Formats: sequence, C-alpha cells, structure tokens
Amino acid sequence: MQVIMEKLFLSEFLMASGESALDATAKVDDLMAISVEGLFTANNVWMMLATVLVFIMHLGFAGVEAGFSQSKNTVNILFKNTLTPVIGILTYYIIGFNLMYPGFEVPGWFSFGGFFLDVPLNGNSTEYASGGYTYWTDFLFQAMFAATAATIVSGAVAERIKISSYLTFTLLFVGIVYPIIGSWKWGGGALDAAGFYDFAGSTLVHSVGGWGALAGIILLGPRIGKYVNGKVIDKPGSSVPLATIGIFLLWLGWFGFNGGSVLSGKPGAVSYVLVTTSLAACTGALGGLFAGYFVFKRLDFGMVLNGVLAGLVGITAGADVISPGWALVVGLVAGILVVFSAVTLDKFKLDDCVGAVSVHLTCGVWGTLAVGIFGVDTTGNALPFLPQLFGVAVCGITAFTSAFLIFFLLKKAFGIRVSEQHELEGLDSHEHGIRGYTIVYDE
Amino acid sequence: MQVIMEKLFLSEFLMASGESALDATAKVDDLMAISVEGLFTANNVWMMLATVLVFIMHLGFAGVEAGFSQSKNTVNILFKNTLTPVIGILTYYIIGFNLMYPGFEVPGWFSFGGFFLDVPLNGNSTEYASGGYTYWTDFLFQAMFAATAATIVSGAVAERIKISSYLTFTLLFVGIVYPIIGSWKWGGGALDAAGFYDFAGSTLVHSVGGWGALAGIILLGPRIGKYVNGKVIDKPGSSVPLATIGIFLLWLGWFGFNGGSVLSGKPGAVSYVLVTTSLAACTGALGGLFAGYFVFKRLDFGMVLNGVLAGLVGITAGADVISPGWALVVGLVAGILVVFSAVTLDKFKLDDCVGAVSVHLTCGVWGTLAVGIFGVDTTGNALPFLPQLFGVAVCGITAFTSAFLIFFLLKKAFGIRVSEQHELEGLDSHEHGIRGYTIVYDE
Amino acid sequence: MQVIMEKLFLSEFLMASGESALDATAKVDDLMAISVEGLFTANNVWMMLATVLVFIMHLGFAGVEAGFSQSKNTVNILFKNTLTPVIGILTYYIIGFNLMYPGFEVPGWFSFGGFFLDVPLNGNSTEYASGGYTYWTDFLFQAMFAATAATIVSGAVAERIKISSYLTFTLLFVGIVYPIIGSWKWGGGALDAAGFYDFAGSTLVHSVGGWGALAGIILLGPRIGKYVNGKVIDKPGSSVPLATIGIFLLWLGWFGFNGGSVLSGKPGAVSYVLVTTSLAACTGALGGLFAGYFVFKRLDFGMVLNGVLAGLVGITAGADVISPGWALVVGLVAGILVVFSAVTLDKFKLDDCVGAVSVHLTCGVWGTLAVGIFGVDTTGNALPFLPQLFGVAVCGITAFTSAFLIFFLLKKAFGIRVSEQHELEGLDSHEHGIRGYTIVYDE
Repeated sequence: MQVIMEKLFLSEFLMASGESALDATAKVDDLMAISVEGLFTANNVWMMLATVLVFIMHLGFAGVEAGFSQSKNTVNILFKNTLTPVIGILTYYIIGFNLMYPGFEVPGWFSFGGFFLDVPLNGNSTEYASGGYTYWTDFLFQAMFAATAATIVSGAVAERIKISSYLTFTLLFVGIVYPIIGSWKWGGGALDAAGFYDFAGSTLVHSVGGWGALAGIILLGPRIGKYVNGKVIDKPGSSVPLATIGIFLLWLGWFGFNGGSVLSGKPGAVSYVLVTTSLAACTGALGGLFAGYFVFKRLDFGMVLNGVLAGLVGITAGADVISPGWALVVGLVAGILVVFSAVTLDKFKLDDCVGAVSVHLTCGVWGTLAVGIFGVDTTGNALPFLPQLFGVAVCGITAFTSAFLIFFLLKKAFGIRVSEQHELEGLDSHEHGIRGYTIVYDE
Repeated sequence: MQVIMEKLFLSEFLMASGESALDATAKVDDLMAISVEGLFTANNVWMMLATVLVFIMHLGFAGVEAGFSQSKNTVNILFKNTLTPVIGILTYYIIGFNLMYPGFEVPGWFSFGGFFLDVPLNGNSTEYASGGYTYWTDFLFQAMFAATAATIVSGAVAERIKISSYLTFTLLFVGIVYPIIGSWKWGGGALDAAGFYDFAGSTLVHSVGGWGALAGIILLGPRIGKYVNGKVIDKPGSSVPLATIGIFLLWLGWFGFNGGSVLSGKPGAVSYVLVTTSLAACTGALGGLFAGYFVFKRLDFGMVLNGVLAGLVGITAGADVISPGWALVVGLVAGILVVFSAVTLDKFKLDDCVGAVSVHLTCGVWGTLAVGIFGVDTTGNALPFLPQLFGVAVCGITAFTSAFLIFFLLKKAFGIRVSEQHELEGLDSHEHGIRGYTIVYDE
Repeated sequence: MQVIMEKLFLSEFLMASGESALDATAKVDDLMAISVEGLFTANNVWMMLATVLVFIMHLGFAGVEAGFSQSKNTVNILFKNTLTPVIGILTYYIIGFNLMYPGFEVPGWFSFGGFFLDVPLNGNSTEYASGGYTYWTDFLFQAMFAATAATIVSGAVAERIKISSYLTFTLLFVGIVYPIIGSWKWGGGALDAAGFYDFAGSTLVHSVGGWGALAGIILLGPRIGKYVNGKVIDKPGSSVPLATIGIFLLWLGWFGFNGGSVLSGKPGAVSYVLVTTSLAACTGALGGLFAGYFVFKRLDFGMVLNGVLAGLVGITAGADVISPGWALVVGLVAGILVVFSAVTLDKFKLDDCVGAVSVHLTCGVWGTLAVGIFGVDTTGNALPFLPQLFGVAVCGITAFTSAFLIFFLLKKAFGIRVSEQHELEGLDSHEHGIRGYTIVYDE
C-alpha cells in the first residue's frame, strides 16, 4: 500500500511540474500492475471466502447426521465427521490434488501429476495464471470439496459401521476414487471432451458420494429393529435443533460450493449462481413439504430439511446455465423426488440413517440430467442431453463399483459392522467411553 | 484473467519495442476496463458476503426462538423458522422486489414494477449501474432482508399459533406489506422525500416486524398458564446454549445487515458501520445486564442476550451517521429499554415468548428517533428529528393495522390458535409427529 | 460507481473525438484513483471478513466450554463467554487499542496513545495509510483479537470461579495486560526490535491467555471431587455436539485469525497462510487421536477436538514462514503435546475444565519455538531461535505474574471461589436462576 501511495504522490508531483506525455507512458505500466493486482485480489478474496464456506459444510453435515441419529451414537458420528475433513484435506494434499488436476496431455481417463503440492517457484506466488485465485486457494478450495464426498457416505452408514472400516474407506474413496472421477471433467479429462457438463458437482461430488453411500448400506444391511414385520420403525434422532443448524449451515456453505465454482469473483456470474441456488433450495423445501404431507399425512419437518438439501444438490450441476424460473422447477422436483426416493429405499430395506442416498444420489442424478433439459449456454443454445446421461452413467458405475469393492474387501478382511451388543447399547459407550449428552442437575 | 495477463504481456512488449505516447493512449482504455472491473468486483464481493451473513440470521432467529421456548414446541418453531426464509425469498422473487423498488416516477406511496425479476438484457450482466453490486446481488440481499421482518413475528406468537395461520400471515406480510412500506424510503418514495432517515431498517424492518408481532399477540392472547393470579409464570426454554448460538449468529449476521446497507464495499463507510454496530451491541448487553439486575435481582442471562439484540436494533437506523461515542449511548439505552418494555408488556398480559416486541419494536422506534438526536450528516449538520417521528408513526400505523387486519380476518375465517389440548401437550407431537429432543441411552 | 461510469463514458467520448496524447495524461490520474480504490477495497473486504471470522470464535469458545463442562453450570459459562467479547471490545475502545499501538518513538516497553479512538480528521476516512485496511477495520479486527485472550482463561477456571472475580480479572487482563504485551511486538516495541517473531499470536494471544489460565487454576484449586484418592474423576460435559460446534467454529474463525494477520488481502500471502493453518489443524487432530489412544486406550474424541485446536495454536506463530510440509509436523507435535500436557497437569492436581492451558499455553510455546526451528524468511534464511525463546520467556513471565497478582488480590479482597454448596448444586440455579437445558414433554 505504501508503494501505491508513493506512486500516487509521484503522479501528482509529475502533473504539478508539467509532465510530458512520455511520463504518462511510464505511469501507465505502474497503473497496470495496481489494476491487475486489485482485480486479482478481489477475485481471490471471493475464492477464499468460498473455501471458508465449503469448510463449514463439514459442520453442517455433522449437525444433520448427529441430529438425525440416535443419542447413543452421537459421539461416534461426530468423531467420524470431524476426522472426515482431516483425512480429506491430508489425502488431497498428498495425492488427490495431483490426481484430479494432473494436466492431461490429451483428454483421458487417468494421469498423475506427482505426490504432494507443486509449490510455485517463487513460494508465495501471486502469479498463478490459471484463474482468479492463487495456487494455494485453488488447492484448499478443492480439498474442502473433496472431503464432502466422503461425508455423504458417513451419514448413510451411521449407527452400525465399524469406525476403522469407515476411516479406511474414506482414505481410499477421497484419496483416489473421487479425484480420478473428478479429473474426467474438471481436470480436463475424457468426460469434459465428451461435452459432459457439471458446474459444481451434482454428479462429480454428490452422486459420487451417494453411490458410495448406497454401496455401504447394501453391504452393511439395515440397523437392528429398523424393519420389523414389513413395517419401517422410526429411530428418533437425538436433536432436531442440531439437524436444523446443520441444514442452515449446509445452505450457507452452498453459497461457497456453487458460488466458488465460478472460480473467480466475477460479479454477474457469481451472483447469478447464488440466486439460482437459493431459489432451488426454497422450492426444494416446498417439494419436500408437499410430498411429505402427501405420503405421511403430517407436516414432516425432516422432509422439509431434506427438501432444502435436495434442491441444493439438484441445482448444483447447472446453477450457472439454468434460468431462475427453471431453477424453481429443478428444486421443486428434487424436493418431491427426495421423499419418494426415501420411501422406495425403505421398501427395499435399504436403511439410510439420514436420507443421504436420496438427497445426494437421486437428486444429484436429477440435477445433472436437468442441465440437459433446461440448461442454456452463454450464446443461448440448449445444452445437449446425451452427454449428461453418459456422464451420470460413467461416474455412477465407477463410483458404485469402487465403493462396493472397497467395502466388500474390508468386510471379507475385517468385517465392517459392529457387534449386535455394541449396536444395541450404542457405539459411544463402547468405542469412545463417553456419552453425547449428559444433562443432569443433581450431583 | 487470461485476457488480463495477455494485456500485461502486451504492455511489456510495447515498452520493450519502444512504444510511442499514442500506444499509451490505447492502453489507457484497456486499463480503464480492468480498473473498473476490479473495483466493481471488490464491491460486489462485499455485498455477496453481506447477503450470506443476513441469510445466517435466519438460523440465528431459529436458535433464539427454539432455545427460549418450551421443548414440547421445538420442532414447530424450527419448522416455522425454516419456512420463513423460504416464503420470504419466493414472494420477494415473485412480487416483493418490484413492489419495494418500483422506480417511482414521483415520490409516492405505491407503485409496482411488475411480477418476477426483471432479467437484464445481457443475462449475467455485470453492468448493473445502480451501485456497487449486480442486479442479482441486489435482489438476493434485499430478499434475505425481507424474510427477517416475518421471522420477528414468529418468535412472539410461538407456542400457540396455528401453523397454517402463521404461514398465510407470512405470505401476505412479507410479500406485500413489508415491501410497500420499504418502498416509501428505500424505493425512493414519499418518506424519503420527506427527509426520513433509516439506514438499515430500525423502522422499516425491525419495528415493522415488531408491530406485526404486537398485533399477533394481542389477537392470540397469552399462553395458558402464563399469567396466574396476577403473577407472571416463567416457561423455561428448552436450551440456553441454543439461544446463545442464535444471539451470536444474529450479531454475526448484523455485520452484513448493517455493513451491507452501505450498498457497496466502500472501505471507510462500511468499516465505520461495523464499529458503531459492535459498540452498540456491547453496551446493549450491559444495559440489559444492569436493568435486568435492577428489576429481577439476579444476573439475568436472557436480558443480556436480548440486550445485545436491543443494541443492534437500536443502532441500525443510524449506524452510518452516529459517532462511536454516541453509539455506546444508543446501545446502552436500548439495552435498558428492552427490560422495561418486557416488564410492561407482561403487565398488560401481552405474552411475547421471546421478547420480540421489546427488542424489535421498542428498540426499533428508539433507534429511529436516536438518528434525530445524535445523527450528523457528512457535512456535519445534525439530522432533523421531526421526519424521524413522522416515519415512525406512518410505518407503525401501517404495519400494525395491516398485521392486525390479516390476523383478524384469519381468526374470523379459520381461527388462529391451536386447541387447548394441543397447546398443553405441545405442538410437536400433534402437528409434526416427532419430538425436538430424544436423548435416551437404553434401547 | 456513477462517477466511475461517467469517467468511462468520458473516455469513450474522448477516443471517438480523436483525443490527443495529452488527454490520455489527464485520464491516467483518473485511472490511478479508481485502481488504488479497487485494490484498497479488495484488501479491506478481506480484513473485514477476517474480523467477522474472529468474532465468531467467541461463539466457538462458548460452545467448547459449555459443551465440555457440566450441565449445572451451562448458563454461567455462556454468561461469561457472552460478556467476554463485550468487555474486550469496550476496554479496547477505551484504552487497549492505544496501549497496543501507541506509536513508539523508539522501540520500548511502554507507551500510551491516549484514551478512546483517534478518529481520523475526515471522519469516515478511507485514507488510513498503515496498510490494506481502514482505521476502523484495524480497530475492530484487533479488538476481536484482544477478547480471545480472556476467553482462554474462562474455560480453565469454569465451574467454581465467582462471576464478579472473573469479570474484574477480564477487565484488567484484556484492558491493560494484553495490549501492553502485544505492543512489544505488534506495536513495534522492544521484542520486535529484538528480532522476536510471532505472526498471529501463538505467544502474544494464546500463551498469554494460557498463562492467565494457569495462574487462575493454581489460585482457585481443583473442583470438588475432581481428584479423589489419587484418581482423576471425569466430570462429563453437558453436550459433545455443542463442543464439536465450538471446535469447528474456532477452526473457521482461525481462517480470519491467521489469514487476517497478513493485514491485507494479498492473494499469495493470505492463501498460503490458510493452507498451513488447515494442514496443522488436520495433523493436530491425528496427534491428539494417536496420543489419546496411547494414553487412554480408547478413541478419545475430546483429544481429537483439542488436537485440532492444538494444531491451530501451534501454527499460529509461523503460519506465513513455515512450509506446508513442516506445518504438518508442527500440528502433529502440538496434537501429541496437548494430550501429555493435560495428563501432566492432572498429576499436579491442576484442574483445567476444558484443557485450555494445554491447548493455548503448551502449544503456544511450542508454536513460537517452532518458528525458530522450521521458519524461513522471504529471502530463504532460517529465522533465529534465541529471540523466540526470549520472547516466550518475557511474555510468559509478564503474563503469568500479572494474572497471578490480579487473581491473588481479588482472592484476598473478596474471594474468587464460590461456596461449596453453590459449586455442588451448580452455579446456574444460584447465580442466574435458570437451567441451561429444560427438556420435558409433559406439562
């Protein structure tokens, strides 16, 4: 700043002393540096804010999952959700970032840029030419993203998975599976070349996580007492306020998740995305409310909350190419889908503690396809449908197969489910030695 | 960014090849575009951050209201507070934005700019010339604001209002009443022409919401068992930590509520507002603490928390025109007022579950009048008092009458209060079929 | 913005009418103003965001402390944690800011710039030439910092300290002790001249708070029933989810705490700091997990959470001068240290309710020394070790002695500990008249 100020004074001095046009030429290059730095700083501030917002989504997921699951397993869930971003960020540092953005020579299916971060030559470089942010911002933003894919699995498999199995799965899924799939589109790989469009990850993040969750609950089986004589037995969550905090924090974080996916602070583009994102969240809530009332004949608050998430997941693939009006439709449909998806899963005795498969997989697929239905590029042309279907299929098959394989091998090798006694008595007392809540008033 | 980089290289190339002064002229226009984009981006990033912060106030309100009300009604309150921003954003999209900023031909009392958003011709426009943000940022920031007016009502009428009545009221109050009143000042209407000053909404948002709340609790009547034999019976809230989370999130959000009302990221103006806002919140807490101790003879934590809000509401009308020193006074008085207002309401058997009328109406009026007492414009002249009184009266009469009418008609048509049995047993089990908290450790 | 737009049109007009090179000269100075304002606005937006993030750390501390302490004292803890930033901001306004940044004539140990804020001549000045932010942003950012030092003490002394003693201590510690110590480095005082390096306050904030906490628990003595027959008796906290919310909010806030300590939005420098900060938090969690398992033979979630904080405190002194790779080591060691520190304190019957001394003092010292081991300045030279040791010693002796003296005098004058009956029955019912949680379902 002091340098800038000196230049300002210099300029005034030159003007006062009757500078020539040639002096102006010299000043122009000073100015160029300041102007470019100002724009770059503004863009990077937005991207750092987006990073911070995506980070807080991990607290959001923790809240939703701990709030919607039983009090005897609260600590176990929070333990998983705290270690998930830890593992996610570290694996992304060690291997993920360079798997996802390997610098394909030609668009392909696999490439690897080497272990660890590729520290720019000049250390704290501001000259990272890839876009509106620095190398470091890029890494951290993408690392926060990566960890969300595993978090999605966490909620579905809660209350009966062995903690060691979950952590091993997370290590492999976030460290290897997620970044390789991501590279196909965001790293400039084969899906990108095929015309597949996924703005912020309805498929690459959410459905990938959702497929992982589905593989997990198939191999784990339902919780004891969940399906009895053809009936679905509710397992009341410990705290609806905690789940509500989680949902609001997820909506908050989505402003960074989608808004940051513009990869700069470009005013029109980013703010447009925030609007479509919010509108879809709103109609998602209404969709969940209406469908929930239709199915359960009550004002089902859980379905309103999951409806918000459904709308958000749904708009994520096309938040920048779908109009505000169609965003309302995308969200509404997602909110309705999430209810019927949850009911359908229960019919197949697929026990998903928090509705993660319905929210992230069902609505992730819907949102990706919606890009091929409602999406319009900047020149006003409709985006094609078939590449969307292709991308959904390719990513889905890969994510599900990989997750199934990991869980299957873990199951054969060590078992992935806790003992019946531990499940009934709760994971907190057995694995962690403390209770989630201890509310007493007498010594 | 790539374009910018190319220009930077071009500049260096020109310099190296001995450019003339005329080349500099051409570069100047390149530079202008970058400079303007940099400043615009920075301003818009701040406004998007402010939008995000105002959004999280809805979680703040949810926390305060669910924390301060009884555990048997927790889900019902969270349900209302989740749907309030949903309804608020959607109605603002459909009708509110164009009611509030209709583009008055001459300053008046009513004009309407048409349904839905007025999408800029070039789609993702960055050329929204009204200020330091885009059209989309403008809409979303104002939409987040709109929904707060209804949320204020939600807390006061909790624990006995019919959910259908509340949602219908919200639809009309946020969709129509709030934006019309807002248009009188912020839309360039008649109150603006009359010299009324309300920086960020002590009157236009908070007292409008507070008047709505007052109308609601008059027509609803107090909760069963609240006033017995001339005594006020405490109804302990479910969770003080939840209420505290709410208050901190509201303070956090207020940085966006007031800071964003500068309508750009102008460094001096915005940061000045953040300072006056924080100072008033602090002395508000002390005012609530001292007055609470004076009245109740205990360290009343509820009054400290409401004192924070009182200070924030109080400084909102004049955060940019009141000095830091006077901001301390505005906050302190607000913190004291909120306690005596709450006691007074109880004397009249006006049962406000969370103190919303005292916080938002009483302190909203105080803050608006304080502008006419302590406020100084940029040229150092005191702001006049009478237009403040006029604005308070006009908005108050309109807001109260409208809200009273809506609630009255709903009462006549469908009833606005739940049955005695539902109220006693709690709204959660009857309307939503789940409990707010289920903390058990044995299967 | 309108001014800018007019200039843009002017420029186009001039070009169209065949402007001369001299016209370009005039435009260059217009441009300079816009460019400088753009960069300044972007920098200041980041600093305001950092301020907002540090603010929310106070909710983080409140969550950790209320979550980790017994339910009978929940309101008391929240009361303290709400008043701590209130007192912190107000004392910093009255005296602290000018004690900490007094404008030393020569580097020294004490100077005072006068009471209250030194309002810039032009009021809402944007010309605050000290760096990438305004005078007001500077004050508020530093004020939010100041209050954290006292908050650290709050957690350690919880559950048995008299509220009046705590508030008096906070007033003196934050108002006088903290800013004087801070002035030695950040105010350009004697430690700065001695080559001591502390980027964001491992010593100046965290260990200062930690020393205060240590003094407090020595003079208070342990809680009744904490150490019985040579055994350490667990006192289960009220809510692990609340503590988890607290930890995540602290991590979130640390992006502002460390990221804002760059004192501008400089893209490379800030984003680098966010990366080292996050990596250390992650390995801190692992260090706590491993050491906790080694010591307690269980997956101790409390140690994972405190490990996150330990990593964050550890990297704070050198977040800008330590490489990402070494940041992993700094965090891991901090996470291990926090466990053994906690065990050691218990051996000496030093009862720290939330592990504040272990987190902030032990890891604050470690982090400061780590700068002298792993730190490298911008020219690639290793930072010296001895000034780090000197700074740790000088600040430690001063902070501990001052805190001890304040608590000692308060103890002699009024007593600092509540009665045995109040401690056993809980502070909430005796001092505040309400419970922290009231979860019932029958009227």
